[in-house]
Amino acid sequence: MPADPDDFTVTPYAVKGEIDYDRLLEQFGADRLTDEQIVQFPKPVHPLVRRKVFYAQRDVDPFLEAATTGQTHSIVTGRGPSGPMHIGHIAPFYFAKYLQDQTGALVYIPLSDDEKYFAKDKSIAEISTYTRENLREILAVGFDPDRTRIIIDTADADVVYPLAAAFATEVTQSTVNATYGTPENIGLSFYPAIQAAHLLLPQLVEGAHSTVVPIAVDQDPHVRLCRDIAAKQRYDVTKPGALLSKFLPSLDGPGKMSSSSDAPSILLSDGRETIFEKVRTYAYSGGQSSVEAHREHGGDPEIDASYQFLYYFFEESDERVEQLAREYRDGTLLSGELKEIAATKIADFLEGHQERRAALGSLDEELRPYRLTEDERQTARQRAGYPEDLIV
Amino acid sequence: MPADPDDFTVTPYAVKGEIDYDRLLEQFGADRLTDEQIVQFPKPVHPLVRRKVFYAQRDVDPFLEAATTGQTHSIVTGRGPSGPMHIGHIAPFYFAKYLQDQTGALVYIPLSDDEKYFAKDKSIAEISTYTRENLREILAVGFDPDRTRIIIDTADADVVYPLAAAFATEVTQSTVNATYGTPENIGLSFYPAIQAAHLLLPQLVEGAHSTVVPIAVDQDPHVRLCRDIAAKQRYDVTKPGALLSKFLPSLDGPGKMSSSSDAPSILLSDGRETIFEKVRTYAYSGGQSSVEAHREHGGDPEIDASYQFLYYFFEESDERVEQLAREYRDGTLLSGELKEIAATKIADFLEGHQERRAALGSLDEELRPYRLTEDERQTARQRAGYPEDLIV
Repeated sequence: MPADPDDFTVTPYAVKGEIDYDRLLEQFGADRLTDEQIVQFPKPVHPLVRRKVFYAQRDVDPFLEAATTGQTHSIVTGRGPSGPMHIGHIAPFYFAKYLQDQTGALVYIPLSDDEKYFAKDKSIAEISTYTRENLREILAVGFDPDRTRIIIDTADADVVYPLAAAFATEVTQSTVNATYGTPENIGLSFYPAIQAAHLLLPQLVEGAHSTVVPIAVDQDPHVRLCRDIAAKQRYDVTKPGALLSKFLPSLDGPGKMSSSSDAPSILLSDGRETIFEKVRTYAYSGGQSSVEAHREHGGDPEIDASYQFLYYFFEESDERVEQLAREYRDGTLLSGELKEIAATKIADFLEGHQERRAALGSLDEELRPYRLTEDERQTARQRAGYPEDLIV
Repeated sequence: MPADPDDFTVTPYAVKGEIDYDRLLEQFGADRLTDEQIVQFPKPVHPLVRRKVFYAQRDVDPFLEAATTGQTHSIVTGRGPSGPMHIGHIAPFYFAKYLQDQTGALVYIPLSDDEKYFAKDKSIAEISTYTRENLREILAVGFDPDRTRIIIDTADADVVYPLAAAFATEVTQSTVNATYGTPENIGLSFYPAIQAAHLLLPQLVEGAHSTVVPIAVDQDPHVRLCRDIAAKQRYDVTKPGALLSKFLPSLDGPGKMSSSSDAPSILLSDGRETIFEKVRTYAYSGGQSSVEAHREHGGDPEIDASYQFLYYFFEESDERVEQLAREYRDGTLLSGELKEIAATKIADFLEGHQERRAALGSLDEELRPYRLTEDERQTARQRAGYPEDLIV
């Protein structure tokens, strides 16, 4: 692995024309993740970091300091259960699990079923079905239950709502309007307070410590709003940091992966055949229109969906991704071959995931060790200002 | 007691110049409480009804039908615990208790500690202290625990928040802005959803039935907003009805009684001496400036705070209040004498209340039989659309 990630000959800046990641940073006021910071990550540095998919950050230094010196540190990474999960959704969880294995990071996973009900035209029953399905996917990642908490907004409302109520007084409606546009309904108006509860929960349970939120850069406003609450110092918490990523690739090419894009997403439940079929049929190709032209002119890995998947997440070896890029560029490697390589890697990864998922028992039983204990709930409420004996 | 309450020679319209109760009704679109409706109330009709302090209503007919034919019916009357309770605050609770004794009405009592934290410049700890104090006052009223539920928003968030989240999608931010003005913070933006949860909770626990909310007329917008949610028929609930009252009197004269008015309020904790001192010192007098002038010209009971207290709540006998008004008008009864009569009645009432309060055990123990059972919580969540096994 190269010491200086800028030495990489392949970079995933294919979306330059569509998304100006630098301008986003300027707009949001976050900082680039520097090479000096990258080498501070525990070794081996995760591909998402060393390839600068996480390309920007807020307050990542104290987090790395805590992570590498055995102090309490936590990662908050959530899920809005509005549908089945695809491979883009699961990446942050595996990233968090990777850090947890390396440094013992606490991982807090809020499921915002309330927000999805507020934002999507779906019934509570539908959202609840996805919540249960998504929980199985998250449990299949294999987090350490002693260091991981999974929170479901409506099922853990006994702690989530009192915390959100405490933080809600710090957020004016006009701040929300300015940050997100005027919300459609009052659930969405309130939701930033719920999100602040998510991001501050690890500190309210465990005491003040360094938290980071690995999140796509467009989600940074949520973090900023919560940092403003923490900055007021009414609570003994530090401002949550952030690791801001570029948008993960989708089959139909560069840009933000979304279940609502034209090409289908690769779902975590897809079998090997389905995966190959989706990649073969839909993966946007950076190659030429004929084998002859490709052999002569070569392809462009930076706009090739199959390559992007490998680069972002599914090929761990830096040498291998560089080799693939080189061979694709010089025409040695054909689009169809690249698709087979990507599909194989994705299918192998999902096979492991699906095996772990299939080995799970009932959701009830499996989830129990990940839920907040009564003591933790009580502690969090007290740290948010509620008296021990509120009721009684 | 007269069959036709319009025969009353004394009426509490003293605030005509200040508050146009008719215009309020027109503005809100509620209806007058008619004489025909008043005689449908269970006998003896409560003074607040037969003297038309409750002067307007929404859907009171189905409530009276249910109440007088042994069907399920409920009253929701809440408390925002932002300070100690005064005699104006407790009146609706005694009214609810009176109906409960007469007809077995279910009484649901939500304490909106969250809203008071959102709206007042007070810490959660302060609000929580008032919550506990206020709970003791409410428990002293002596509701039937089998037919009464007391809900504290932040302590019962496990049921209040999921219900509010369900209703929040039905309320746009612009409706809230139009109804209440743009809220200061996002807690207040969301609060109408919490209030809808309060007003619909009895039906979500017990099945659809007729509910009324006895409430000062200026609070009617809360009820309307909730009626709009019920009217959409996404839930098996009927629109909550309302009994709308004029503003209860305060020591400094006609208008809305408030802890923040200039004269002090008579607190539920005040002793006999304090009560007499407050009435003697502060009760606004409708009498003349000298005894001689009073004997000659008489006083005006309609602007006299002592008389108003007796009329609104503390003198049960209609003959007696008529007699007092007559004697005050013709100068036989002096202001000082009227004050003594009012102070005695108030002190006697509060003595009974304080005795019941003093006889209470620990708040924990006393409150327990009034709290929602696990089954009731589960039932309410399910009727709001959450699956039985949401978690787990």
